Amino acid sequence: MDRQMMLDLDANDRLKKFRDKFYIPHDTLYFDGNSLGMAPLETKRKMIEVIEKEWGQGLIRSWADEDWAISGQRVGNKIAKLIGANEGEVIAADSTSINIFKAIAAALQCNTGRKIVLSTDDNFPTDLYMMQGLEKFSPERIKGMTVKSDQILDSLNEEVAAILLTEVNYKTGQILDMSKITKKAHEKGILVIWDLSHSAGSIPVHLNKYSVDFAVGCGYKFLNGGPGAPAFIFISKKHQKNIYPILSGWMGHKDPFEFSKNYTAANGIDRFLCGTPPLLGLIALECGVDLVLEADLKQLRKKAIKLSVIFIELMERQCNKYGFKLASPKNKNNRAGHVSFRHANGFSVSRALAADGVIGDFRVPDIIRFGIAPIYTRYQDIYDAVERIKHVMKLEKWKQFDQKVTSYT
Amino acid sequence: MDRQMMLDLDANDRLKKFRDKFYIPHDTLYFDGNSLGMAPLETKRKMIEVIEKEWGQGLIRSWADEDWAISGQRVGNKIAKLIGANEGEVIAADSTSINIFKAIAAALQCNTGRKIVLSTDDNFPTDLYMMQGLEKFSPERIKGMTVKSDQILDSLNEEVAAILLTEVNYKTGQILDMSKITKKAHEKGILVIWDLSHSAGSIPVHLNKYSVDFAVGCGYKFLNGGPGAPAFIFISKKHQKNIYPILSGWMGHKDPFEFSKNYTAANGIDRFLCGTPPLLGLIALECGVDLVLEADLKQLRKKAIKLSVIFIELMERQCNKYGFKLASPKNKNNRAGHVSFRHANGFSVSRALAADGVIGDFRVPDIIRFGIAPIYTRYQDIYDAVERIKHVMKLEKWKQFDQKVTSYT
Repeated sequence: MDRQMMLDLDANDRLKKFRDKFYIPHDTLYFDGNSLGMAPLETKRKMIEVIEKEWGQGLIRSWADEDWAISGQRVGNKIAKLIGANEGEVIAADSTSINIFKAIAAALQCNTGRKIVLSTDDNFPTDLYMMQGLEKFSPERIKGMTVKSDQILDSLNEEVAAILLTEVNYKTGQILDMSKITKKAHEKGILVIWDLSHSAGSIPVHLNKYSVDFAVGCGYKFLNGGPGAPAFIFISKKHQKNIYPILSGWMGHKDPFEFSKNYTAANGIDRFLCGTPPLLGLIALECGVDLVLEADLKQLRKKAIKLSVIFIELMERQCNKYGFKLASPKNKNNRAGHVSFRHANGFSVSRALAADGVIGDFRVPDIIRFGIAPIYTRYQDIYDAVERIKHVMKLEKWKQFDQKVTSYT
Repeated sequence: MDRQMMLDLDANDRLKKFRDKFYIPHDTLYFDGNSLGMAPLETKRKMIEVIEKEWGQGLIRSWADEDWAISGQRVGNKIAKLIGANEGEVIAADSTSINIFKAIAAALQCNTGRKIVLSTDDNFPTDLYMMQGLEKFSPERIKGMTVKSDQILDSLNEEVAAILLTEVNYKTGQILDMSKITKKAHEKGILVIWDLSHSAGSIPVHLNKYSVDFAVGCGYKFLNGGPGAPAFIFISKKHQKNIYPILSGWMGHKDPFEFSKNYTAANGIDRFLCGTPPLLGLIALECGVDLVLEADLKQLRKKAIKLSVIFIELMERQCNKYGFKLASPKNKNNRAGHVSFRHANGFSVSRALAADGVIGDFRVPDIIRFGIAPIYTRYQDIYDAVERIKHVMKLEKWKQFDQKVTSYT
């Protein structure tokens, strides 16, 4: 496993042309596409067109003439293809947190008589927080509970209305068994909400194959939709008509331009729109999603696994002696799009690496994450990154950095 | 009042340079800035910079290095200056509908023991719908009610927790008396939520002068923030610390990067963030807000009044015989940023005008709205518009258009 081998792998990579479709940061090896994906070149071109022509010239007319009004649905239908959903089951709108809120309330409406929403204590915090906010306001209707991740199957019982789980753990990259958990939940009459934030665009997801009820996900990670991109929500066709959305905004009304005093839900997935679609964000998201669709998720997953296997092996060979301990599952099929290591000085190390041009990120208390985004990450990048990590550790460069954790990276 | 007089008024207009800062649609007289403001030239420049440099090169680092993380607060503080709020009381985030939802839930938390939220039946529908969605989910905590607009003062009593009113009526442009209504409400222990969607950037608003409790507003109308721009929410300092936000997302957490299992609200207005800030939308919104601040709201209001007075007078002289009836208040001080006329064939007329290049919009059942946006609308545009309207009516061009109402324009 030398550098030449990596260059050969890159030369034969079926996906190699895709890297040229992104802005590549100079002098930087970027391993944080699981937190913010790179900017597609097309996003700039399309954004200029939208600002100059569709907004600048078309103005209000573009809601109809340029299909602005249905952009959330259009992008949603594209995302549907990546997560095993059908047309009319996914819509791009709002943030992941807001969509979690919609899904929790919807699940409680579909499972009347039960009020427990169960999650895991290692779930991404916003999932838990959205549950807590609703419970604080309306304790009559919802009781949030968490259990340890490995106890979720044993905790399913007839009092639970819904489970709220994230398929890919944000710290370790571990993939939960969606098929098994969903099946067991359904046997107990429990509805399931899957958070696909670290799944969408990274691993193939099969929502309808496993009869999943609800799902949400993030647009700015592996979908490369841009900072704070709109998120998405999936509502299975079997539930849509039974739900009066808690966030019943005018864009989810059956006929918004009737300006009726009373809310009547739109047909199908449209009712999960709330306010006016965030057009610029949706346009950027669509550019990112289009690239993932073009690259083909199966190919991306295949390459991601190869990259992560090489990365872990190189890290073990070169950097084990510096105190890194694999936090991700050892089995490649149980890992999604990022590889994490524990390190006692995790934050300082992560900062020192960034200063030397290896951008990963840090998650408390001791996790350094390296995102593998096969649409633009090359085999040589993996190799070069490990060389740089070794260099930083050998010179103990991390000692120059504070251990006090600050935001985002 | 001939065309030359209008050209003279334009030549002496202190605000005339601002028109050159927008993309101006060719062959179009645009009177729908109350629905979607024009695109600032600066928005394109800034968006390119953000995509190429901040996102393209800086990537995840830009959340800190380019202050992405506090862009909602920064834009909020700018909007605060336009609505009579203090620094730290306004944040730009989510949609108007979502912010209405936050404000309703917050008001109910601040006024425990009461559950009625009162609005007017001519309020913009999404305000009413958001109330209805929360009530449907949690009838124990909220009961929504509406009364006729002119009965609001007489309907204030000790059972009402909060009133939810829109300052400027979306159909007629009528301005409600914020001072009087807020005062009367407070006397009865009622909290007030003002929707400023048609106020912000159009008329001076004095939230703190009148001790307003909560407010929300729209970014894509007179603030020229772009299609589906992020909206804003104002929470008076006196209430902030008492509120556990119903939409308690991780970005409103005291320390999001602690990744704690339990939500602890951030200090001040920050707790009203929910998901990751929609960066591209916020950047565009800021470009629009900056122009309004530079132009000066007092100057804008002065010019808007002059424009509307001339428009109404010209319409009366030239077009009264064609069946237009003023729907907006006759008193110029009671009208905000758009002038509306009733017409029996309103929708067809509005379509015929658009086909002839006069873009206003239509609101059921019979209202044609003309938005006056003094930051780019000229006196000559007013004159030319009336001439074109007269032409369209004289030739009965509207008869070629269907009366069936369709979306947006």
